[in-house]
Amino acid sequence: MFRRVYLDNAATTPVDNRVLEALLPYLTEKFGNASSIHYYGQEARSAVDRARHETSLLIGARPNEIVFTSGGTESDNLAIRGVVEGNRRHGSHIVTTAIEHPAVAGACARLEEAGCDVTRVGVGSDGRVVPEQVMSAVREDTVLVSVMTANNEIGSLQPVADIGRAVKELRDAGNKIWFHTDAVQAVGKIAVDVDELDIDLLSMSGHKIYAPKGVGALFVRKGVRLASQNLGGHQERGRRGGTENVALIAALGTACRLASKEIDANADHILRLRDRFEVGVRKLIPEIAIHGFDSERLPNISNISFRGVEGEGVLINLDMSGIAVSTGSACSSGSIEPSPVIVALGVDDDLARGAVRFSFGKYNTDADVDYLLGVLPAAVENLRKLSPRFRTAPGS
Amino acid sequence: MFRRVYLDNAATTPVDNRVLEALLPYLTEKFGNASSIHYYGQEARSAVDRARHETSLLIGARPNEIVFTSGGTESDNLAIRGVVEGNRRHGSHIVTTAIEHPAVAGACARLEEAGCDVTRVGVGSDGRVVPEQVMSAVREDTVLVSVMTANNEIGSLQPVADIGRAVKELRDAGNKIWFHTDAVQAVGKIAVDVDELDIDLLSMSGHKIYAPKGVGALFVRKGVRLASQNLGGHQERGRRGGTENVALIAALGTACRLASKEIDANADHILRLRDRFEVGVRKLIPEIAIHGFDSERLPNISNISFRGVEGEGVLINLDMSGIAVSTGSACSSGSIEPSPVIVALGVDDDLARGAVRFSFGKYNTDADVDYLLGVLPAAVENLRKLSPRFRTAPGS
Repeated sequence: MFRRVYLDNAATTPVDNRVLEALLPYLTEKFGNASSIHYYGQEARSAVDRARHETSLLIGARPNEIVFTSGGTESDNLAIRGVVEGNRRHGSHIVTTAIEHPAVAGACARLEEAGCDVTRVGVGSDGRVVPEQVMSAVREDTVLVSVMTANNEIGSLQPVADIGRAVKELRDAGNKIWFHTDAVQAVGKIAVDVDELDIDLLSMSGHKIYAPKGVGALFVRKGVRLASQNLGGHQERGRRGGTENVALIAALGTACRLASKEIDANADHILRLRDRFEVGVRKLIPEIAIHGFDSERLPNISNISFRGVEGEGVLINLDMSGIAVSTGSACSSGSIEPSPVIVALGVDDDLARGAVRFSFGKYNTDADVDYLLGVLPAAVENLRKLSPRFRTAPGS
Repeated sequence: MFRRVYLDNAATTPVDNRVLEALLPYLTEKFGNASSIHYYGQEARSAVDRARHETSLLIGARPNEIVFTSGGTESDNLAIRGVVEGNRRHGSHIVTTAIEHPAVAGACARLEEAGCDVTRVGVGSDGRVVPEQVMSAVREDTVLVSVMTANNEIGSLQPVADIGRAVKELRDAGNKIWFHTDAVQAVGKIAVDVDELDIDLLSMSGHKIYAPKGVGALFVRKGVRLASQNLGGHQERGRRGGTENVALIAALGTACRLASKEIDANADHILRLRDRFEVGVRKLIPEIAIHGFDSERLPNISNISFRGVEGEGVLINLDMSGIAVSTGSACSSGSIEPSPVIVALGVDDDLARGAVRFSFGKYNTDADVDYLLGVLPAAVENLRKLSPRFRTAPGS
């Protein structure tokens, strides 16, 4: 029987009802501008202050180290362009990885056009960078190291603690160098503490953790010099101009508070569903590769290549059965090239083209997994029958 | 009897119930990422497409000339930095005015730091620039003229049609020069048509027209080369990366559709309230100046200086009586200097310090005006009694 199963939680998540309740008053009676001095303004201001506190707690920061933004992409741009433009006199070299989100990659590429140097460190077949390789790319004029906490396509966890410590040691020795991490996929799924991990700047997004799209935050450690990008009013202590998005900021704060409290229970639930799915899919479908299967990765992402088929074919077939998944990331959809992240793993082209991301969320159930396992094998088999690239291996 | 009267509609407006209804489905069941290919993504995509159409209609543009942003400040930054950075080879001189919003002023100042030249044209006592003065500041290397449609503090309308025509003539003659207008305060209050006014880029904001804070749009005329500022995914045809803020974009679209339909009725209602207020206040309170009283201005703003008192004192007194007004703009609140806009009018310092902005909205009523006129005279009189600066004029 047809049912709708949403397995694209790494692209975006449904809004938690408790988050919706928290934001609604700021779309109705409490509509003030948080920069206004009067009663209506104070109501809005106190919501923003509370959200700042809640957001900081989730990542072990202090409230005044949180800058609210319009989302993960703006956070990444503000971090990277902000640090580099704000510290020009110290150098203009950036070390990053080959598997960053387009927001980080795009901001770095723009700075490159403007004359900065960028070194992109590759990953192993496990989808992880080696900390020593990252640090050996650091030069005298490196001002920023940007390495994501967890990859958005395959979920591989990066060694941010090691990199953070190494960058901090350099800074303690007098180098002007800072460590940024795009933690958009990691925050709320695994414990992330900016002090334990020696992170100087951290990007996060509301809509990956059951708040609406259109709000995010950037953690900026006290003392980091940042050139603001959205110039305007004095909002966010001059680090991000523009009228505060009060309702969605309240939503982000609430989502962070809920994540702090429920992160373990959610991770357990989601991991159990994903494991059930992966055990089932390995049993039911031959010639597949689960990327990063043996390595440290997020609990919610399962990125699988089905040999001989196009990932997009699988996506469309599943969609007709009510199941929502993705190929690559939503931010690069529409591209006909295989995902650069999967290619960076050293996977052969045929396998790379067959990659599909299944991403689980707290609202998924065992019945969702059962339905998926009931639909997926036939979908892949039918596509393979039509594929000139797929020849059944002898004996299978 | 105490009542709450909101007269700070130029800072932000309440959300229209019909706008709220239009956005809510995108915070609940229709939560997809508009860049996803599947069912959930298509639902979101169609909401964004519809909103793009509705938004374009309000200003006489074509849908693909609309870029959704996080608000007016981002729109201003994208327009100004985008045009200048995208057209470096044609020059780096900007002509703007002395009374722009901090978002325009801030973006220009940042470009100035980066080596661009900026000419700021002053205004007369009516708060308006003279088109000939603006155009005589244009040089061979001018790439952008940025003049607001209506001032945010006193509501004075700028001669954008004349400036737009003159810039277009220069471009038709082969100059690489474009015209941007910050129309955040004007859109939805007066008719603004980008073709009639020969506007190349126009900034607008949702929360000034009864949509929520956190969403805006930039009109970019087809053919204008723009360096995007939020680098990332291919959203908004590569002009603005980042997951689309689907719910608030739907809200903006609906707000634009309602504004198109109701602009005349709203303007009539608001103008009638403001006129009643201004007639009353002139009768009841001596030694005041209504800025731009005799000149073309928005229907909703009344900016009045009360000689001998601080605007902030009036604001706080009125707030205690439940009335919300502002001094300067919300974006520059907290500043102890008199508003640069009021100073630019050539008003003496004492009068400049006593400026208060009353801004009316469609939900205000005659009873609101009556209440205000009941409270304001005593508030000003009491403040003047305490003021060392105020001496009652002989005979009054």
